[in-house]
Amino acid sequence: MLTKDDVTMKILEAKKAAGLGWEDIAEKIDMSPVFTHSACVGMNAFPADKAAALGELLSLSDEAVEVLTESPTKNFAQTVPTDPCIYRFYEIVGVYGPTLKALIHEKFGDGIMSAIDFDMTVERVENPKGDRVKIEMSGKYLAYNAW
Amino acid sequence: MLTKDDVTMKILEAKKAAGLGWEDIAEKIDMSPVFTHSACVGMNAFPADKAAALGELLSLSDEAVEVLTESPTKNFAQTVPTDPCIYRFYEIVGVYGPTLKALIHEKFGDGIMSAIDFDMTVERVENPKGDRVKIEMSGKYLAYNAW
Amino acid sequence: MLTKDDVTMKILEAKKAAGLGWEDIAEKIDMSPVFTHSACVGMNAFPADKAAALGELLSLSDEAVEVLTESPTKNFAQTVPTDPCIYRFYEIVGVYGPTLKALIHEKFGDGIMSAIDFDMTVERVENPKGDRVKIEMSGKYLAYNAW
Amino acid sequence: MLTKDDVTMKILEAKKAAGLGWEDIAEKIDMSPVFTHSACVGMNAFPADKAAALGELLSLSDEAVEVLTESPTKNFAQTVPTDPCIYRFYEIVGVYGPTLKALIHEKFGDGIMSAIDFDMTVERVENPKGDRVKIEMSGKYLAYNAW
Amino acid sequence: MLTKDDVTMKILEAKKAAGLGWEDIAEKIDMSPVFTHSACVGMNAFPADKAAALGELLSLSDEAVEVLTESPTKNFAQTVPTDPCIYRFYEIVGVYGPTLKALIHEKFGDGIMSAIDFDMTVERVENPKGDRVKIEMSGKYLAYNAW
Amino acid sequence: MLTKDDVTMKILEAKKAAGLGWEDIAEKIDMSPVFTHSACVGMNAFPADKAAALGELLSLSDEAVEVLTESPTKNFAQTVPTDPCIYRFYEIVGVYGPTLKALIHEKFGDGIMSAIDFDMTVERVENPKGDRVKIEMSGKYLAYNAW
Amino acid sequence: MLTKDDVTMKILEAKKAAGLGWEDIAEKIDMSPVFTHSACVGMNAFPADKAAALGELLSLSDEAVEVLTESPTKNFAQTVPTDPCIYRFYEIVGVYGPTLKALIHEKFGDGIMSAIDFDMTVERVENPKGDRVKIEMSGKYLAYNAW
Amino acid sequence: MLTKDDVTMKILEAKKAAGLGWEDIAEKIDMSPVFTHSACVGMNAFPADKAAALGELLSLSDEAVEVLTESPTKNFAQTVPTDPCIYRFYEIVGVYGPTLKALIHEKFGDGIMSAIDFDMTVERVENPKGDRVKIEMSGKYLAYNAW
Amino acid sequence: MLTKDDVTMKILEAKKAAGLGWEDIAEKIDMSPVFTHSACVGMNAFPADKAAALGELLSLSDEAVEVLTESPTKNFAQTVPTDPCIYRFYEIVGVYGPTLKALIHEKFGDGIMSAIDFDMTVERVENPKGDRVKIEMSGKYLAYNAW
Amino acid sequence: MLTKDDVTMKILEAKKAAGLGWEDIAEKIDMSPVFTHSACVGMNAFPADKAAALGELLSLSDEAVEVLTESPTKNFAQTVPTDPCIYRFYEIVGVYGPTLKALIHEKFGDGIMSAIDFDMTVERVENPKGDRVKIEMSGKYLAYNAW
Repeated sequence: MLTKDDVTMKILEAKKAAGLGWEDIAEKIDMSPVFTHSACVGMNAFPADKAAALGELLSLSDEAVEVLTESPTKNFAQTVPTDPCIYRFYEIVGVYGPTLKALIHEKFGDGIMSAIDFDMTVERVENPKGDRVKIEMSGKYLAYNAW
Repeated sequence: MLTKDDVTMKILEAKKAAGLGWEDIAEKIDMSPVFTHSACVGMNAFPADKAAALGELLSLSDEAVEVLTESPTKNFAQTVPTDPCIYRFYEIVGVYGPTLKALIHEKFGDGIMSAIDFDMTVERVENPKGDRVKIEMSGKYLAYNAW
Repeated sequence: MLTKDDVTMKILEAKKAAGLGWEDIAEKIDMSPVFTHSACVGMNAFPADKAAALGELLSLSDEAVEVLTESPTKNFAQTVPTDPCIYRFYEIVGVYGPTLKALIHEKFGDGIMSAIDFDMTVERVENPKGDRVKIEMSGKYLAYNAW
Repeated sequence: MLTKDDVTMKILEAKKAAGLGWEDIAEKIDMSPVFTHSACVGMNAFPADKAAALGELLSLSDEAVEVLTESPTKNFAQTVPTDPCIYRFYEIVGVYGPTLKALIHEKFGDGIMSAIDFDMTVERVENPKGDRVKIEMSGKYLAYNAW
Repeated sequence: MLTKDDVTMKILEAKKAAGLGWEDIAEKIDMSPVFTHSACVGMNAFPADKAAALGELLSLSDEAVEVLTESPTKNFAQTVPTDPCIYRFYEIVGVYGPTLKALIHEKFGDGIMSAIDFDMTVERVENPKGDRVKIEMSGKYLAYNAW
Repeated sequence: MLTKDDVTMKILEAKKAAGLGWEDIAEKIDMSPVFTHSACVGMNAFPADKAAALGELLSLSDEAVEVLTESPTKNFAQTVPTDPCIYRFYEIVGVYGPTLKALIHEKFGDGIMSAIDFDMTVERVENPKGDRVKIEMSGKYLAYNAW
Repeated sequence: MLTKDDVTMKILEAKKAAGLGWEDIAEKIDMSPVFTHSACVGMNAFPADKAAALGELLSLSDEAVEVLTESPTKNFAQTVPTDPCIYRFYEIVGVYGPTLKALIHEKFGDGIMSAIDFDMTVERVENPKGDRVKIEMSGKYLAYNAW
Repeated sequence: MLTKDDVTMKILEAKKAAGLGWEDIAEKIDMSPVFTHSACVGMNAFPADKAAALGELLSLSDEAVEVLTESPTKNFAQTVPTDPCIYRFYEIVGVYGPTLKALIHEKFGDGIMSAIDFDMTVERVENPKGDRVKIEMSGKYLAYNAW
Repeated sequence: MLTKDDVTMKILEAKKAAGLGWEDIAEKIDMSPVFTHSACVGMNAFPADKAAALGELLSLSDEAVEVLTESPTKNFAQTVPTDPCIYRFYEIVGVYGPTLKALIHEKFGDGIMSAIDFDMTVERVENPKGDRVKIEMSGKYLAYNAW
Repeated sequence: MLTKDDVTMKILEAKKAAGLGWEDIAEKIDMSPVFTHSACVGMNAFPADKAAALGELLSLSDEAVEVLTESPTKNFAQTVPTDPCIYRFYEIVGVYGPTLKALIHEKFGDGIMSAIDFDMTVERVENPKGDRVKIEMSGKYLAYNAW
């Protein structure tokens, strides 16, 4: 029985062999690059048609395509991420978390931004002082309502 | 000697008494709401002129104004934040962290998005299915260069 | 400036003096016992009218009533709860967590039960072999949708 | 010697091949879906007759059927579950744990809800604003008695 | 408002002044020494009559007597106890835990020994090679029953 | 080279094949059930004659018999045990640890109960309200003596 | 009611005022320097006569003298000590722990060195290449005996 | 490529086959038993001539002999050691650590005992009340000097 | 598919066979020894020309050379490093971290030293009292700027 | 009795009142800025003459001056530092720790760089692409010698 990890490994091999980037793959199966990568590394499930499209693009087996559509178990390997690129986002949550909370409460009331009904983009913005990474997150506001 | 915590407490009291929101304060001292809140709760340092403006707006003492300009020590109280509003951002880093890393590497090369040379906005976006929180982050790309 | 903890302490004193139970208070302010207790111990915010009703019932100050309506920061004191009554619920999540996940996925698809758009009741059910605690939770299903 | 994990793997394969859901299997062996799944993933022991019924349904070996009836060791893989679907239940225990304790004490006295003499159901409830997950737990009340 | 800790402090002072041991106190209020000490240090609740008897014996205030009857929150200060006398019991659970589990399963089936419907005694047993501590625990067996 | 784990596995297989319980084995080699199980799962060392007796009973190889007599390294897999049957003992140490310490100090002076010069029994006690698990521990008292 | 910490503070003040070292104090009350310091900082209990002698030497109150004879609760403040002088001992246990265990087993059989029936000295040894710290520990061997 | 672990395994096998103890081996290669064992289990590096002598004694391959001379990475498997024989040393550091620090400071000034320029012996001392383990540590004193 | 770990293993074998040191390799491919080692053990990515040079020097396969140029995921195996040589650097950060922060703030303002735009050298400095390790770090200063 | 923390607080107040930087203070008492700051915040002990000089410069009391010369206990508040300026040094140890170890071993043999017989400087280096922080560490090499 193939696991999500097995299928990720197959995708990485096929992607390397084909010389494709994540944005190329995302464009060819018409899904956002963030969700495409996330589902390819087993942190999200593919819709059936997108799984089929990816399977065709990278010549995956039927079983692999089916595995891609299964609900994943999202275990984070490290409580505090050590990779510097990922740690910086953890640091942003640590430093600016209370600020995000205060501004969400001011604009909406007592509640949260959903991390499920959620989407995100990553872009490169040219800048003469050094190019910048631009990240946009959008999540549905959910209110704590008394009952 | 006043600590950063003492000054935060004074600001919260004055803000409550004046009936001002964080966005109101930010506008009056002409600084972004995110940085304004962050510096008011002691996670960032105010530039001298902004500290003075805030001091005037909220009638803070000279010592308090000076404390606002000092470099803070940024200790996060919890390794894994438990507040649901802040936890969702931690979860996003856990679920999408490897994806952010992969896309940054694809677009820029081996490096990171700076969390220091960094800015962020929080907005409310109306939506018939439920309004959404929109967050934009922008940080300078820093490359790992061989030496 | 009163904190949430200060107000909780005042409520516990007034409740004890008045000889009221949580269900009595909940009934008098017409809100569920679970949400009433949760908001009284500072883990949720009162709607303004309920805060006013509670203030009148227990003779709280205007400042205390206002504090009750503020958005709380929900910090859990212990990563693994040690109190045996609370630990049993942690154990249920540990033992049956994967089962809850599997059944939610089977009935709904890839997603979660919201802990924000959520309500809960606690009841005593008579039983000749020993009375039972009955807990009912209801939370909105939120789907992970590809984008 | 087959381990519980080996048998779980065999069940998952046979279930996938047969195109059965957990509720289908539970119905066919006449046991609740929660306990059925829980025992299939090795967190509970099957009664002998139910193990036999499952073995027949999924064509498991005699050894596998016997393993299903053995007492399991219930190790939770993660102190704080990271999977968002399971984390939400952990969050509920964190946010509402003191409330559950207070209401149990008010209704019963000093004691706990058993997590052993315990059962649970998961249902889908239709709702025009979005369907809801309904969970019902029932556990025997156990009192701390002085001796 | 008196806390459980305040009352414990008062009991320790009164006990020291009266020159009484825990066994003396237990005998005078006719409750076991283990439960008596446990309730005096705030890890268990006194039945009303025993609280009254202790109050009379040690001249505690009415409020203190009432506090003794309240349900305690049992927080363990240390995940791994460091005091050598307590650590040895932790070590016994570590070394012999799987053995206790195996023998309980062999004698009863899949289940546990309750730590709630539970009692314990501590005795000194004379022995020419060095006196021994004898501890007897008795807890109700609770079975995991399928449903 | 056989490890303790390898030998445990062989014992479990042979025990299953022979249809023997731990108490049966203990009786046949004339050693207590607690120590027998503990040594079989590699948490204690067998005396040479008992290892030989077990080897004969279960047809173990000479190398396996020798491994049984080696001093084990006692690593606990989990800081806080999650299995409910074992956790209850951890909870008892948490809730009643300070009580055990206080009573040992009262009866003996400043010291501990040894967990090395130690023995333990587990029994089933019939009870009309539900049978009970009875555990008896006996450990040598060791005093802290000034030097 | 004086705590052990209060008494330690008084001893440190009196010692400083008197200009005495730990070895001076130890000599005057005729107890080893290690046990003297350990009992003064509340990690061990004084025998009654030694407490009286120390009380006289440093002019402590009767209550303080009595507190010195009580059994202490030995909580270590840090799981991994960070002070470099103490950390080096932790490192020695980490690096040479398996070696100490192997040599004790080779010389004695399966058992441990007691940390209760235990004494220790610290000496300065002159050495032309730099003076050395010499530490001698002596603890009773305790055997794991089958029962 | 042989790892340190591979070589340790070979040494343990050869030692068992030859019926040698650690002290026998140490004597034959003329190195202390503590360092010999420590280097055999991969926590220290052998000097080249000692590695050669051990290789000859136990008939190790040339590659194994070379591996013995490499600098090891000293990872401790457990933050708090659970094996009772090793834990007792951890407990000694916890209970007597501040005492060791105070006496070193009194005898030498502000500094530490080196754990690198360090040696240790383990001996059995006969004693009619039960034999004792005697451990002698000697480490160079290193001072914190202002600069 | 070769992983970074596989390639590290090949490099270590080839380096051993060739009898080369890290400084030799660094010199031959004209890159600093620190970055060379770091990239060889998979904590940094090689520039393409340096990877090619290393591949030629050590006869690595084309696939291995390509793997060397990929962005690594930098996971630290231990939160607190236990190896004494690495721990000393952790200790320096613990003891002198607040000092480094204070001096950077005094010389530059509120900001940090980059660990990405960063380089480092390690040298041996002869000294009659014992040779010394000299480490030089240079990192770009990054300021927290208000926005 | 003044603690190290009390004295640090007095120094910070006096320094602020006098408008002195750490480098100014260091120069006036003729000690390095790193050691001066470190000793002022209680992580190191002042030599007697330097404590006297600082006392004169900042008008500290005699007791404060004496406290400055006492051996400190160096407890790190956080296992993983969260302040971004200090975290970067932790990250450097994580990423480059194995490299530092490998190069030290190559240049010296099996051993460490002392963190006690150690000194450090921090400098600002002008650079047209952005000024850089330059840190130089020098520590005595200590060898692991067999015994």
